[in-house]
Parts: sequence; C-alpha cells; structure tokens
Amino acid sequence: MISVEAAAIEPAGATDSTWREIPGGVTAPLGFRAAGLHCGIKRARPDLALILSDVPAACAAVFTTNRVKAAPVLVSMEHVRSGKCRAAVVASGNANACTGPKGLEDARTMANVTGEVLGIPPDEVIVASTGVIGVPMPIEKVCEGIRLAAGALDPGPTGGAAAAEAILTTDRTLKEVAVEGDVGGHRVRIGGIAKGSGMIHPNMATMLAFVTTDAAITPGMLRRALARSVERSFNMITIDGDTSTNDMAVAFANGTAGNPTVASEDASFDAFSKGLDHVTGTLARMIVQDGEGATRIIKVEVRGGKTEWDARRIARTIASSNLVKTAVFGADPNWGRVLAAAGRAGVEFDADLVDVFIGDVLVARSGAAVEFDEGRARDAMARKEVLIVVDLHAGAESACAYTCDLTYEYVRINASYRS
Amino acid sequence: MISVEAAAIEPAGATDSTWREIPGGVTAPLGFRAAGLHCGIKRARPDLALILSDVPAACAAVFTTNRVKAAPVLVSMEHVRSGKCRAAVVASGNANACTGPKGLEDARTMANVTGEVLGIPPDEVIVASTGVIGVPMPIEKVCEGIRLAAGALDPGPTGGAAAAEAILTTDRTLKEVAVEGDVGGHRVRIGGIAKGSGMIHPNMATMLAFVTTDAAITPGMLRRALARSVERSFNMITIDGDTSTNDMAVAFANGTAGNPTVASEDASFDAFSKGLDHVTGTLARMIVQDGEGATRIIKVEVRGGKTEWDARRIARTIASSNLVKTAVFGADPNWGRVLAAAGRAGVEFDADLVDVFIGDVLVARSGAAVEFDEGRARDAMARKEVLIVVDLHAGAESACAYTCDLTYEYVRINASYRS
Repeated sequence: MISVEAAAIEPAGATDSTWREIPGGVTAPLGFRAAGLHCGIKRARPDLALILSDVPAACAAVFTTNRVKAAPVLVSMEHVRSGKCRAAVVASGNANACTGPKGLEDARTMANVTGEVLGIPPDEVIVASTGVIGVPMPIEKVCEGIRLAAGALDPGPTGGAAAAEAILTTDRTLKEVAVEGDVGGHRVRIGGIAKGSGMIHPNMATMLAFVTTDAAITPGMLRRALARSVERSFNMITIDGDTSTNDMAVAFANGTAGNPTVASEDASFDAFSKGLDHVTGTLARMIVQDGEGATRIIKVEVRGGKTEWDARRIARTIASSNLVKTAVFGADPNWGRVLAAAGRAGVEFDADLVDVFIGDVLVARSGAAVEFDEGRARDAMARKEVLIVVDLHAGAESACAYTCDLTYEYVRINASYRS
Repeated sequence: MISVEAAAIEPAGATDSTWREIPGGVTAPLGFRAAGLHCGIKRARPDLALILSDVPAACAAVFTTNRVKAAPVLVSMEHVRSGKCRAAVVASGNANACTGPKGLEDARTMANVTGEVLGIPPDEVIVASTGVIGVPMPIEKVCEGIRLAAGALDPGPTGGAAAAEAILTTDRTLKEVAVEGDVGGHRVRIGGIAKGSGMIHPNMATMLAFVTTDAAITPGMLRRALARSVERSFNMITIDGDTSTNDMAVAFANGTAGNPTVASEDASFDAFSKGLDHVTGTLARMIVQDGEGATRIIKVEVRGGKTEWDARRIARTIASSNLVKTAVFGADPNWGRVLAAAGRAGVEFDADLVDVFIGDVLVARSGAAVEFDEGRARDAMARKEVLIVVDLHAGAESACAYTCDLTYEYVRINASYRS
C-alpha cells in the first residue's frame, strides 16, 4: 500500500526560513520531466522510473563505498565523471548486482536505450537499480519499459510522483519533497525523491536519492554541496561504511532558473546548500520513518562534542545499536544501553561527565543514574518520535542521527524477503 | 531453565589430540575451589560466584575496550597488573556500571570482603559483575553472600558447576569445559566457565569467562597465551570494537601440576596454548549456541584471504549482519546479502573472484549467480548449524566467525529485558 506522505516532517539538516516547501518532487524545478511505470520486473507494481532535464545539466553523485558494486553503479560512476548528465533511468525489483559481465552489459544497454529514445548521448544517462542481488536483469522488459516511459514523461507533479513510486521496493510510502528559495537574487527550486526502508542495516536495503534543481551551478560546486549535504542527512541514518552494493545519491542542475552560476563557495553557494540540506534532510527522515517494521522514529542528538565528527560518530553508533532500538520498541527507558553504545563509538570522552535525556527527562547525570519519573520517561518513549539526548560536556559541537525501532515485523520482513 | 550442556561442541580454535576433554569446569584443575549461590541481587536464582586457588597463582586478563567501563572492571584492571591474583568474585544481575563513585566503592568493598574472608590480600581478588546498568549494587546482600560462598567453596565438580550457574543472566545453559593434556612432560588441566547470550550485539550482553589451570606458567606468558586465544575465540563471536562495559576474560594458573614453569614461547608454551584454545573456543561456541532467541548457529568461514586479518575481518562482518542472520532464520539462501556484507568489511578484494557456498552447495561463483539446487541449499540452511563459506581466491589464509540467527524471540527478550 503506497500513500503519499504528508510533508510535515522537519528536515534533519540545517533549515533556513528563506526556503519554503512547495508541492511536488523532481519535477518541481523548471525544465524537468519524469515518468514511472510497470515494465515487468516486479509482478504488478511500478518498477521503472525515468527523469530528464530538457536541457543539458550539471550532475554530481555520491556512490556506495562497498567493495561489491552493482553494475549500474559502475556505469554511472563512469558517466558522472564529466559532470554533465541530464537523465536517470532506475529499475526497481532487481539490483543487477553480482551478475557478472552480463550484468554490466545490461546496465550499459539501459543507458544506451535511454540515450537513444531521449535523443541524448548515452553517457549523459545515470543508471540505477535496487532489489534482489544476483538475479539476471529481464533486460528486454526493461528496454521496452524505457521506450514507454520516454513517451510518458511529464513535467507536472504527476510525473514526479510516478517516478517516486516506481523506485520503491519494500517502502510503504512515497518519499518526495521540493523547496523554493532565493539564490543570487533569483527564485530557484530544488526537488528530490528517494527510496529505502531497511533502516536497521541500510547498507543492504539500497538507498537511492535523485535531486533536481533549476539553479545554475558548476559541476564542481554541485559535487561539493551534494557531498556535504549527504554527510549530514543520508549518512546520519547509516552507520560507518555500511552501504549497499547499489546506494547512490545524484543531483542534476539545469540552470533554467537563470541565476548567476554558482561557481565558488560564496553566499549564493551557502544559500543553495541550505535548500539542498532541506531536501536531503527531509528525504532522509522519510526513509527512517518508513523503516522496515518500524513503529517509531528515534532521533539521537549528541551535544557537547569536542568536534562535530565526534558527535556524529557517537550519534550514529547509538542509533545503530540493536539493543537501543529494541528498548525503544518496548518503550523501556534503558539508558544504560545508550551510554554503553556511546562508549564503543571509538571516540575519546569522559564517561563521568555525560548526561542522558529521554525526551526532556534527565535519566542519567555525570555518567550515573539519577532518580527520574519512570512514567514520564516511558511516555517519552511511547511517542511516534522518540528523542534521545546525550550531552558529552566536552565541547560545543553537536550532531543528530535518525533511526527507527527494531520490531518483530523487521524480522518477519527480512526472514522472508527473497522467497 | 538451566541445563548442563553436553560437551559435544567442536572447539572453535585449533585443536590438538594431545588434549582431551574431562568432566568439570574451573575446579577440574588441581588446587581450585569454587562456589555459587543466591545472595539476593536476582529474585530467586544464583547470583554470586567465587573461585579460589588454594595457592598463589599467576593471573592474566583481557578487558572491555569500551570507554564506559564498569566499576569492577576498573578495580580488576588495577589488581591484575601485578600478575598475581588467586580469586574471583562475580555478581550477576547487576552490572555495577554507570554507578558513579558509590559503584567504585562497592566494587572495592567486594574485593576487600573477599580478601578478608579468604585470608588473602584484597588486591589478589578479581571482581566482575554483569546485569542491568545504572542501578546501585545491593552491597550488603553481596557481602553477606561472599561470606556464605567462602564457606561453601568446593574443590569438586559441584563447586565449579555452582559457580558456572551463578554467573549467568539471560543464558539458558551452563557453559563449562575442561581439558587434560601434556605440558613439558607433566599432565596438566585447564578448565573454564563463561556467560553471555546476547549474540546479536555481544557488546551489551556482557561476556565473562574465567579459566583456571594447574599448569605452571609465568604471568607474562599466561597473558600472551590468553590474548592470542581470546583473539581466535571470543573475539570471533563479536564485531570490531563492540564490547560491553563489563566484558572480561581472566585466567588463573597455580602451578600445582608441577610442570617446569612455562617462561618463553617454546614447545611447552605451544602445548599449553593448544589446550587453552580448546577451552576458550568451546566456551565461545557455547555462547553462540545460547544466543538470545537463537534457533541456529551460523559458522562463517572465509578462505583464500591475503592475510588472516583480512579473513577474520570479513568473517566477522558477515557474521554481524542482521540481514544474513534474518535470512538464516528464514532458511532463505540469500547469498547476495553474504557477498554484500563481505564488501563492506573494509578489506580490499576482487569481488569478481569470490565463490560462496551454503553448506556444501555452491551458490555463487566468481561473484555472480550460478544455478543451484534451491532445495539442497534450503536444507543446508535449516540445519542446527549453518555453514556459510566465502572463498576470496586472494591467498591462503582463513578464519571462522560464529553467530546465531536473528529471531522474533531476540526482539522479545530485548524489548523487555529491564522491565
């Protein structure tokens, strides 16, 4: 069951009042069209998406660091090197990973056919896949799907939503967002869609994100902005190095808004980055909210870090603890698990200074138990979004990580995913 | 329900025919006595254990690397520095972690009282705890328990088994083993007990192990042998850096067997190490077998590594993947998850060379799918011990890691542990 998610989620990254949310996703920026449809990889649900900029675009991407890279990742890494790509083709239901030379050939075929039907060079096409590993791609069906999708490309919100739906696998909700703001005195738009719902180990449940913008920005600056933004959003819902064979986040910027091209780290770069953070942060939180089997979001906020890196690392380690996640599922204010997870993050800190809050309830002070109202703490853990705050009292830096609880349903989904 | 585990488990480490299993645990070696009883930390189950060497002993220990260390860990780290300790006192049901200055005082009190009632210096006492974090120790009950335990010390198998039972928390089975073999032409014995059952994140569910031997060995050599043995056993059922606030493995050697003291890395050191590996390896596998909610053991064997470190790291990463564990629970031969987990281990290898077996069924060759008999693969995954083999074809080194499947029961146990 797919329902459009109300855009009521606070973004995870920095926000700025100059950016406001507008309807739509990847087709909200000017000069982009999209489509999504069923081509036959999955039994009955949409499984092929296409996104196209009507004019040449700057492109930047971030890929999985997994040694085992899916064929489409290898092809897209080649294509993005030029900084000039304007289309993405995405197949869902089949990862095209661990598929040998035939898999690579299939990924290239997807780029070639897409380029051909859109009338653009094949190396301006980004290819992505998500789904089961090790199964050959039904490439004829996919090629037929690409041809149909090219004919269905739509510049309106329907096109964007169709693409957003077609990239999903075990997701229960669409993930799309768009914002409008000011860059260099011009009104620009940034939109995005994402998929991913295996939050406990996001490494395996591929995370895909596609961002479009009508801002004018050089490929180099787009790359810098994207890398930084991903670090604060998608990488804060994952644990170190834990990335799937297929993960990628891609941004296309086609300059249709007419702003002076962002070409250095100036004020317009900062303005653009804030809008981008809004989009990636919102998508990241939507992914967590849709975590496999999740009943609650968990926000882990680490304050008082000596460095931002310290705070981030500890926040991620706590957020990736199975024991913290199961405690939240059971609404059990077991703060000892939080502190113990912090202790194994590989960061130096003085455990005797640390305070822990669950919601606004102080549950440990200076590394030790304090009397607290168990009922209030349980209430704080029974909310849809559970806040865990760890104050290291070691500096002024902070970071947030997001995860979801670990439930019976997670086990059910993952014990029977393939069969 | 506690049942004595039949000693039918193959040891994880290297084995040697010169060592044979004998009944008993920590009291199997000469000159050791032990006791276990209920002192009132838990509601009704045994919760206090005492182990004593009748004569002064060499002692070595390995402790948690967590930044947050429980009070007894801090005290034991001080005491073991001399290399001369002869007793261990263990409280279960309360971790005495994150308990502030009072916790440290309580841990010292445990050592002091133990020393007093046994007539030995307090700094020859190792203190250990396991259980809930952040709750003050009921120290009066514990002290009373120590006095009773001192009077109950028993050199026979009953004493060892009582200690083995009293250190357990959520464990379902006793974990004890003993071996007899030859060191320097003398018959010596090595025995051990362990607790730990939170296999998915062993970091939180404390792992405690106590090994006794009547071999004569210097503290330095005992330390070296223990460190190496732990690396191949207990550290192969855990993931990098993931250790609890309370973990420790301790060895006592009292020389009662009369062998020439092992004082260098000679043949007698090697012989002793093999016996020790047998004990630690067996205990490690017993811990996995008793993993929280586990229905199956998973043995991950990585072959063809360039270095042993590479093989170990990949084996541990696969063994710590929630997705691999849930696939095994569902008896689903989803080898893509195995390969993808290998890829994020942080080790360089060529994914196109890798073969994967489930049991003896080849499921992937050269990094890609092969036709295989799905029924046979499912059968291999439905066994009590599931074997996953990954051959990197990059060298001659290999390593094994052990884990258990991830089940509904794991979630149930950990969602309601404290309450």
